Amino acid sequence: MADAILTINAGSSSIKFALFELQSSLVCAAEGMAENIGAAPHLLIKTGDQVALEKRWPNHAPLNHEDLLGEVLAWVEAHLGNDSLIAAGHRIVHGGSTFTKPLFLDESHLADIARLSHLAPLHEPHNCAAVQALFKLRPSLKQVGCFDTSFHHTMPEIATRFAIPRSFHDEGVRRYGFHGLSYEYITSRLPTLAPNLAKSRVIIAHLGNGASMCAVKNGKSIDSTMGFTALDGLVMGTRSGTIDAGVLLYFMQSHGMNADDLTTLLYKKSGLLGVSGISADVRTLLEDGSEPARQALDLFAYQAAKQAAGLVTALGGLDGLIFTAGIGEHAPAIRTAICSKLAWLGIKLCSEANQANEAAISEPDSTVEVRVIPTDEELMIATHTRALIAQPVG
Amino acid sequence: MADAILTINAGSSSIKFALFELQSSLVCAAEGMAENIGAAPHLLIKTGDQVALEKRWPNHAPLNHEDLLGEVLAWVEAHLGNDSLIAAGHRIVHGGSTFTKPLFLDESHLADIARLSHLAPLHEPHNCAAVQALFKLRPSLKQVGCFDTSFHHTMPEIATRFAIPRSFHDEGVRRYGFHGLSYEYITSRLPTLAPNLAKSRVIIAHLGNGASMCAVKNGKSIDSTMGFTALDGLVMGTRSGTIDAGVLLYFMQSHGMNADDLTTLLYKKSGLLGVSGISADVRTLLEDGSEPARQALDLFAYQAAKQAAGLVTALGGLDGLIFTAGIGEHAPAIRTAICSKLAWLGIKLCSEANQANEAAISEPDSTVEVRVIPTDEELMIATHTRALIAQPVG
Repeated sequence: MADAILTINAGSSSIKFALFELQSSLVCAAEGMAENIGAAPHLLIKTGDQVALEKRWPNHAPLNHEDLLGEVLAWVEAHLGNDSLIAAGHRIVHGGSTFTKPLFLDESHLADIARLSHLAPLHEPHNCAAVQALFKLRPSLKQVGCFDTSFHHTMPEIATRFAIPRSFHDEGVRRYGFHGLSYEYITSRLPTLAPNLAKSRVIIAHLGNGASMCAVKNGKSIDSTMGFTALDGLVMGTRSGTIDAGVLLYFMQSHGMNADDLTTLLYKKSGLLGVSGISADVRTLLEDGSEPARQALDLFAYQAAKQAAGLVTALGGLDGLIFTAGIGEHAPAIRTAICSKLAWLGIKLCSEANQANEAAISEPDSTVEVRVIPTDEELMIATHTRALIAQPVG
Repeated sequence: MADAILTINAGSSSIKFALFELQSSLVCAAEGMAENIGAAPHLLIKTGDQVALEKRWPNHAPLNHEDLLGEVLAWVEAHLGNDSLIAAGHRIVHGGSTFTKPLFLDESHLADIARLSHLAPLHEPHNCAAVQALFKLRPSLKQVGCFDTSFHHTMPEIATRFAIPRSFHDEGVRRYGFHGLSYEYITSRLPTLAPNLAKSRVIIAHLGNGASMCAVKNGKSIDSTMGFTALDGLVMGTRSGTIDAGVLLYFMQSHGMNADDLTTLLYKKSGLLGVSGISADVRTLLEDGSEPARQALDLFAYQAAKQAAGLVTALGGLDGLIFTAGIGEHAPAIRTAICSKLAWLGIKLCSEANQANEAAISEPDSTVEVRVIPTDEELMIATHTRALIAQPVG
């Protein structure tokens, strides 16, 4: 073994984590997930394909995020033996206008980040809770915050504005963009995997349970489908994506909904789940094949294609389209649906390569190179964390 | 003279109207505007370029919409002499799912239309008030309702859906589209003015104080930038256009705004006015030239170009782009800004023709034909009204 970095991505009822050894490059030594926290917790840690630890607790077991992080740390330290855990790197969804790059976290930063919670109500409080828990469990452990908004700080001013009174923009009500760690990772891989796209006009489609697209020009974000919050843009598993603000006004006036009702409706009950009435999971909907399932998937692809075209306008044309994350990497039917709606751009998918989830999936005469690149947000967090540790303090 | 039709477009503080004689074609005999109702009312009626009637009342004069419609009717009937006013045709903004074409209005329809007011809170109540006033003033006068949503009833199901639970869609929370009378008029002119665009893929950009775009394929609407309400889509004079729903949740939770506050903010204080802090009027902003004015106009064009590209995706390519309404017909700088952001589509404007507000403003080698066609919603209303009158009853 060697000294190591732990990456943490904490959600409302789950904590994803990975352990990276500081070899000449970062080597993932273990990864795992604590899930179902608050109900019947389940902890699973794997080293490669081997299960290293699995624990289940009964329903309503009184374990919180801190308890489960304690379990993870205990395993990590036992696993490392004489080697040390030298830092933890956290994915933090919203960095607001302040946090434009990764940094070592102290209690003061944590208070600043917690104040951003209303911008990402379903994520930010849990990100903060994990940092707080580690402060308590291992006070001397260095912690690094990596923000999903940071990659988008290169967006030109025009892409950050809503058409609302400018005082609100100055207050921070602006478009930020998310999934930045994923976009940064994909962009960092382009010089190796697709050198001709590294300095060109690319859309990266991060299609997972949360989904967004980013317009990348010469390796930098210039626009994104997600805005002020991670509710905006594409249709998602349970989130509505972009929706007429008049719909919210209607729900308030005609259905008596308040902010909590609307948050639950638009973040948890909408998207693929809401339209299909069946599932938030693309795999389930593809298998289901019923009319409502088809409508949900069609709407997902229709909105994705329309919003991609908007990003092409921001880029002034398109050279590459890259699919990543769960759906983007593993659902050929969805890639086909989106690309066929963009055929007018000159995109031609190679059916066989696409079906096989190959790395390059467009035909040679496609005007746009289409690729599948698996994302690795954990590695990006570990990379940032290592870079900060390596910096001379000053 | 001849028998005539009066068209009425009633807003919150103004009533636009026009009088059409039933010659072999419809001839506009007079048009006018009652404005500033509720403050210092001003009534102006013109026949051609001649002022036929002008009246001003002092501030806080106790005149309502009904009183001013009474003034208009009195002038109309005197002007017609022995000829008759045989019908009034109204622009009604929202027809919901029920009203898919123009029809004779009775009290029962009016009640149904009034129930749609929460879908267009700034327009529908005033549209209804004008119909009600005429029922009272001239009980035997035939009244026809023409709906701004009707033209969009050809939109495929996918373009009508939001990604929310399907029960809401079934309840009517869906994308409707507006400015339908304008789009219908422009479409009706294509066979004469641009026959090669009549059966092709066209975007009509209705850019006025309210602004939207429509994707028209073979003469039929297949998608539009406005959705459930006229708040959605493009940046407008005082309306935000599309905005992250998370912004509304933030304003509710962090600023304590309720539905009325949000309605005022997003309908009345946003858009060009909000971003510039100067004016809702494109002419004023173009003359102003300050940084905030430039930012507002840039955002207007950026959003228009991005959303146009989304509609190109719905159309599967683009043959024609038609500008209409106040800004669309008279602001060459805005057309230039939008078209330059769409240059990647192969759009090339002819600078001289554009500056001169000519009818055809693209270069011969532009892949997309760009035109300016003045809209005439009043003539469209009169045309529908005449057609209904001419139909055999039964």
